[in-house]
Formats: sequence, structure tokens, C-alpha cells
Amino acid sequence: MNSRRNFLKNSALFGSLVGLPSLLASTPARAATAGPIDLKKGAVILFQGDSITDSGRSRGRPASQPNNSDALGKGYAFLAAAALLRKYPGKDLKIFNRGISGNKIPDLAGRWEKDTVALQPDVLSILIGVNDYWHSLRSNNPYKGTLQDYENGFRDLLKRTKEKLPGTKIVLCEPFVLETGTVTKAWFPAFDEYRKAARKIAEEFGATFIPCQSVLNDVSKDIPKNYWSHDGIHLTLAGAQLMANAWVSAFK
Amino acid sequence: MNSRRNFLKNSALFGSLVGLPSLLASTPARAATAGPIDLKKGAVILFQGDSITDSGRSRGRPASQPNNSDALGKGYAFLAAAALLRKYPGKDLKIFNRGISGNKIPDLAGRWEKDTVALQPDVLSILIGVNDYWHSLRSNNPYKGTLQDYENGFRDLLKRTKEKLPGTKIVLCEPFVLETGTVTKAWFPAFDEYRKAARKIAEEFGATFIPCQSVLNDVSKDIPKNYWSHDGIHLTLAGAQLMANAWVSAFK
Repeated sequence: MNSRRNFLKNSALFGSLVGLPSLLASTPARAATAGPIDLKKGAVILFQGDSITDSGRSRGRPASQPNNSDALGKGYAFLAAAALLRKYPGKDLKIFNRGISGNKIPDLAGRWEKDTVALQPDVLSILIGVNDYWHSLRSNNPYKGTLQDYENGFRDLLKRTKEKLPGTKIVLCEPFVLETGTVTKAWFPAFDEYRKAARKIAEEFGATFIPCQSVLNDVSKDIPKNYWSHDGIHLTLAGAQLMANAWVSAFK
Repeated sequence: MNSRRNFLKNSALFGSLVGLPSLLASTPARAATAGPIDLKKGAVILFQGDSITDSGRSRGRPASQPNNSDALGKGYAFLAAAALLRKYPGKDLKIFNRGISGNKIPDLAGRWEKDTVALQPDVLSILIGVNDYWHSLRSNNPYKGTLQDYENGFRDLLKRTKEKLPGTKIVLCEPFVLETGTVTKAWFPAFDEYRKAARKIAEEFGATFIPCQSVLNDVSKDIPKNYWSHDGIHLTLAGAQLMANAWVSAFK
């Protein structure tokens, strides 16, 4: 146990050190615990998450094809995929989306073999957490998971991932909300703890961390929150582009 | 008639002069007959065209809402809209897509009042022409329009537009194909004349011209054509992002 903890601490330190130069050079919108990701030729990139990632993507046959517009949804994953495919035309990237609306950590865990490990991604991006908090609030929802369940479950998921896919680079997107629409004052500070847990997990595993909440807070100083998210949870087209830009900035 | 022709010539000249500094400053991927477009607050932007613009957009209620992800399709119009909405959050832009698969100039003319004039766009972007040529080739298609029909019909459409919407800024996208998939050597040089006609019309009306074909030719020197278009007519996600970038570069 101790040696694992040390290994994780060292990974985190290594991640931070690698990330430092890029962090200093970056705009405030970007921060990464690991350095910018270099995409090898033929790299498989996989987006995992909940409805924000799913964003109405087609299931079935389109989903078996990489870079399929229908299978990538209409959100940040689609926009980030378009930007990467344009930016790196010689790299022969293969981009997939396996986000599913309503998912929480236990849902990802339940379909991890089929929907993540089987795709053997070179880069795995995960955005998860808002439902882990939100669903636990709803009196009519049987989900009773706690913050600790989220953190432990997330850690277990990444441990499994590191074991099964040791070479895979991991991008963790910070779960985010904006206090508008569905999201009331009552969400805070409880929700903030989920964000902190995601950042902690990113550091433990030396993952690249996309600070989505900071990016959204930043632009919400001057522009009303509902320009970026109608309901405080899902992104508008402007919000999705904002997030896609932050995501793409993690790459060399 | 003479005075109209002089007016058009003068407009074209004015457009060229205004465009000159931006043309000199721009990358080869961009050229405009008119200068960069300044977007006023609350500007309505409308994309018109055929399947390349349509790109699977939702009809009905979503289409009545500006900036609706489903109603913007999954092509260059969607990507350009996302980029503009992110870039100009304070401008309160209202972006619509009314492209319809299979459309030619006569189809646009037939629905111009309802689908263009009624929306009172501040910026009107048109991409039309590939079907005007393609459908005239097909022995089983009753369409028998010629190059001259395309040019005359396009000119009539823009005359109507200038009369009904005198303040609207017009963006003309060059019709394009790549010699791959459906598009064979037999398409040339006949198809090139349609491109030239579109450029001529843009100059006559002082419109901003997006040189899509040059942009595609440029990137196809190093990267296989089917990376940008599977069938030579419709854009892949990478191709759509390429085109969206060229389109967005027309704005201040």
C-alpha cells in the first residue's frame, strides 16, 4: 500500500514537473498537471463521460467508425475532434465518443471493458462527476453515492485503466456547473468538493487536467452564465466551443 | 441597364479596394473581394446552400431558434457558428442554417422569400453550385440547367437580395469538388466554369468571397483528397473544419 502511494506521489510530482514549462507559457484558461500531449501517428482518442460528452451522439454502426460526425455528438467532443483532425491531418487520428447521458462513476465502471479498454485508446479523456452529485440530491432518485464514493470509484477506475492500458495518456476534465437554471446556491460548497476530488485524482495519476470550471468562471465575469450553459449543467454551442478550445490546448 | 451595370462595376471596385489591405495581410487560405466583415451587436447570420450547408440539420421547432445546435447541422456552418459564438460572446449573434440537400439556384430562388428575406439577415452566406453542375450530368435527372442558367440565376437572386435586403452583407462561398469518389476527370474543366461564375458574381456585387477550392487544393498537396472529402463533394469533419476556418477568417 505504501509503495503504491509513493509511486502515485512520484507520478504526480513527475506530472507537475513536466507540466511546469507549458503551464508558465499558457494562458490562464489552460492548466495541465502533465505536459502537453504529443499525438503519435494513428493515435486512438476516446472521449468518455456523461451527457455533456454524449451530446446526442449516434449509437450503432456510426459509432464503430472513427471520426464519424454523427457518432461524435454535437458538443465539445465533436468540436475538439474537428479541431484536432484539421490541425493534424498527417497523423491519421481515430477519434471516438462513448459518453452516455446520465452516467456517474459506477456507470462508467460497469461498461469500462467494453466501452474503453476494448478500444485501446492512446488518449483517454474523461469528464464525469456532475451526476454523481446531482443524482444524490434528488429525493426520487435511488442513487445514494457520496463524495467519498465518487473519489474512491474514480481512483479505482483509473487504477484499472493504468493496469489494462499502461501506455494510455489520460486527460481528466474538471466537472463543472454554473449557478443558473437548474443549479442553485444550495449546490455549493458541496459540488466544489467533487471538482477538488477530480483534480486530486488527476494529480495522483499524473493525468492532464482541464480546468473547465476556471475556464467557465473566467468568461462568466463579463458574459451572463446562461450564454455558456442554459441550465447550468449542459453547454450551449458557445460553451462547447470554449471547452473544446481548452481541451485542444492540452496537445502539442 | 447601363446604369445598373455601372453601379455593379463600381460596387465591385469598391469591394476590391476595401478588401486590399486585408488581402495583403491574409494567409493564402483567405481572400475576400470585400473587406473583413464587422459584426454589429445582435447581428443575424444566415447560412444558405445545399447539402454541404444542410449537413443533417433539424427542421421544425429547433430551426426557429437561433444558435440551436441541432438546427445548425454538423458541417462547416455548425463549426463556423460555434467559433463565432465563442469569439464574440458580447455580440448576441443569432445564427441560422437554411441549407437544403440537393438544392440548386432555382431551388434557392423558389424559397428565397420564406427562407432568406423573412429572416432579415445582417450577414447572408451562400454556397451553391455543385448540384447545378452535377444534376445536369445525370441522365436520369430531369434538370437540364446550363452554366449560363447558373450564372444568370445567381445574378437574379443577388439582385433580388440587394433590393429586398439592401444592408445585408453577402458572403459567397466558392463551389468546390475534389477529384475523388464520385468526382472524376470528366468533371473538368466544365465544373471550373461554375467556380469562375461564382467568383464573377461575388465581384459584381462586392460580396466577400471564400475561395473554398483554393483552400482545399492547398491542403490536398500533402494529404490525400479523401481525408477532406470522402466522395469529392461532401466534406469530412476535417474538411468542414478547414472550410469553417476559412469562412470565419472573413470576419473582423
